[in-house]
Amino acid sequence: MIASASRVERFNAAHRLHNPDWSDEKNESFYGLCNNPNYHGHNYKLIVKITGEVDSESGYLIDLKVLKNIIRNEVTDKFDHRNLNLDVPDFKDLIPTAENIAYVIWHKINNQIEDHLNLHITLYETDRNFIEYDGK
Amino acid sequence: MIASASRVERFNAAHRLHNPDWSDEKNESFYGLCNNPNYHGHNYKLIVKITGEVDSESGYLIDLKVLKNIIRNEVTDKFDHRNLNLDVPDFKDLIPTAENIAYVIWHKINNQIEDHLNLHITLYETDRNFIEYDGK
Amino acid sequence: MIASASRVERFNAAHRLHNPDWSDEKNESFYGLCNNPNYHGHNYKLIVKITGEVDSESGYLIDLKVLKNIIRNEVTDKFDHRNLNLDVPDFKDLIPTAENIAYVIWHKINNQIEDHLNLHITLYETDRNFIEYDGK
Amino acid sequence: MIASASRVERFNAAHRLHNPDWSDEKNESFYGLCNNPNYHGHNYKLIVKITGEVDSESGYLIDLKVLKNIIRNEVTDKFDHRNLNLDVPDFKDLIPTAENIAYVIWHKINNQIEDHLNLHITLYETDRNFIEYDGK
Amino acid sequence: MIASASRVERFNAAHRLHNPDWSDEKNESFYGLCNNPNYHGHNYKLIVKITGEVDSESGYLIDLKVLKNIIRNEVTDKFDHRNLNLDVPDFKDLIPTAENIAYVIWHKINNQIEDHLNLHITLYETDRNFIEYDGK
Amino acid sequence: MIASASRVERFNAAHRLHNPDWSDEKNESFYGLCNNPNYHGHNYKLIVKITGEVDSESGYLIDLKVLKNIIRNEVTDKFDHRNLNLDVPDFKDLIPTAENIAYVIWHKINNQIEDHLNLHITLYETDRNFIEYDGK
Repeated sequence: MIASASRVERFNAAHRLHNPDWSDEKNESFYGLCNNPNYHGHNYKLIVKITGEVDSESGYLIDLKVLKNIIRNEVTDKFDHRNLNLDVPDFKDLIPTAENIAYVIWHKINNQIEDHLNLHITLYETDRNFIEYDGK
Repeated sequence: MIASASRVERFNAAHRLHNPDWSDEKNESFYGLCNNPNYHGHNYKLIVKITGEVDSESGYLIDLKVLKNIIRNEVTDKFDHRNLNLDVPDFKDLIPTAENIAYVIWHKINNQIEDHLNLHITLYETDRNFIEYDGK
Repeated sequence: MIASASRVERFNAAHRLHNPDWSDEKNESFYGLCNNPNYHGHNYKLIVKITGEVDSESGYLIDLKVLKNIIRNEVTDKFDHRNLNLDVPDFKDLIPTAENIAYVIWHKINNQIEDHLNLHITLYETDRNFIEYDGK
Repeated sequence: MIASASRVERFNAAHRLHNPDWSDEKNESFYGLCNNPNYHGHNYKLIVKITGEVDSESGYLIDLKVLKNIIRNEVTDKFDHRNLNLDVPDFKDLIPTAENIAYVIWHKINNQIEDHLNLHITLYETDRNFIEYDGK
Repeated sequence: MIASASRVERFNAAHRLHNPDWSDEKNESFYGLCNNPNYHGHNYKLIVKITGEVDSESGYLIDLKVLKNIIRNEVTDKFDHRNLNLDVPDFKDLIPTAENIAYVIWHKINNQIEDHLNLHITLYETDRNFIEYDGK
Repeated sequence: MIASASRVERFNAAHRLHNPDWSDEKNESFYGLCNNPNYHGHNYKLIVKITGEVDSESGYLIDLKVLKNIIRNEVTDKFDHRNLNLDVPDFKDLIPTAENIAYVIWHKINNQIEDHLNLHITLYETDRNFIEYDGK
């Protein structure tokens, strides 16, 4: 039996979208309000989906308490109530768009799960805008 | 990096399900309350998902402000606070079931995005009933 | 022990806002898109709150199965999948704004509950617009 | 035109996770609070998604009133306000983890729909934990 | 400045509605499926609202981290993943209707907050049924 | 007829909780992660409720399009995608706790509505923490 198991977590962070290789004018015109030099912020909602074989003995695909701890250790403890640009080393040279945040989260979690499991990330920046990434 | 970016929009419209090739009895028996000749209505929720390559320079798959404007120009400005049967020419000869509304929306938006991007539509007619369509 | 017990129900209906004592121009300018002569529609969400003494023998303020049936008989069976202007006699001479719909619903339900209970209605026309009415 | 149509239903049930082949210590250490011998419970949310060809005559993939009745007859009438371990024969020899509940629901509904339709189940045990299963 | 500050928490529990002073027939006819002798369960959502003076120095009415800990110590650690009838002494002689659960929770939390603060409890048994209680 | 009409709006902002009259140690110990000198952020959800007489001619308590514009002019255009501490003059000498943000919003909106209307503000900082304020 192949199934997927998902866990929802949240973190609240500040960020700014700014490409240092572009002029200030281009940054402001391209990123709009998201380029505010004083930062703005979001309540990010993260859905981590694991796909794989269900263990017939326990009836679990993965223990969601274990997955919750992986997400907390790898993501929310590091991102929550932080400024993604200034406080999170992963975004030192990477613009913290929702796409790039999803990319970073995918790699952090994928390093902690077994190889035979597939990983899919959904990251809501707002209730109306969200990104999905599965490592491709 | 291949990812998906989604935008949620809403519109409120009246509609009636009625097949002019069927008798009134068959229409009423098949469509039930949805066949009411005086129309009824819904708050439709639309999720537009674009899949493609993320631009490494900007960190964006697609500028969601641009996608928001495409959805407003192509869909919500034309459907919102309208009677789909009477006010929207796309449904002159097409029954406005949620399936057919999703089909019309997919084609309207797909005409406005670049060819290398894939498009997937989710249309909620109510909180409990929804349709997905991706052009197949 | 005084408490409140609430039940959530939904109905989907078409309506049009139009004051027959006003010119077409005034109607269109005042009600905007809601004045569309061909109607538009909504998924209405209704919260019915009853306040009163909890019965110490049963531990119930009111049997919510009974309240559910009152709401269905008095409101949703009459409003759901209907055109409020054309199909519901209460709106023959009353403009079906959310305020007036809440007023009509309050009176219909208040007639069916015991005198010592207080009634409060919340009516969501959309996720972002809602009305409250308690009989005053 | 190939599309998907989904219906959301809910049921409220008690359950306990316990593997009779394991010692009490192993059960308690593995399942944690879910192993409580006196049971605990959940409001389960179920999303049933059907994928197939849309009928061009009716504009329907499947009549969602029919799908609603299948779900009620096969699942919610049997599971709602029940103890899954004691009252539902499917779990006599199967631990009612969310994975196994999704497996049972998938087979019950798949037996009732036409062969050319594909079925996908999403089962929320809580707002933050959910399982998906499509028969593989 | 007088304001209200609210915190949302959740717990998942089994329960059964049964009045030992009534016959089995009366219990079954009055409580319906909720009288199932093998129990059923819910994901309860609890909103704890505190009303009082905002401290002008800190800008806080109450530290919501403190309120969160009070709720966890007094309510969720004792109710979550429990059978309310069998595992929670408060319901030894009190039928665990949502009304009575709200009453018990109000008294547990009110004992832990300062006298000048007012307390209001909202308890959702399902998304569609909820109780409010403020100590009267 | 006295009723209430509510409108929901959202804004996304960065902030930091820091009392300049306190030592860094006291700030960090009292505000915890919210004291991060590099800021963090939230998707704030704002519910603006107006209570007053319904106009019997139009059936409106207040035109919600007018209320929407007041909220956008007074609040969301000034707060959205901003750093509340650095970009919004109202918080130059006022700590932007949710309580104080609600206070500022209440006064900004109350200045724009007619005297006979009552105003109540609900401000969600997260899905689980929210403040209510009505001018007292």
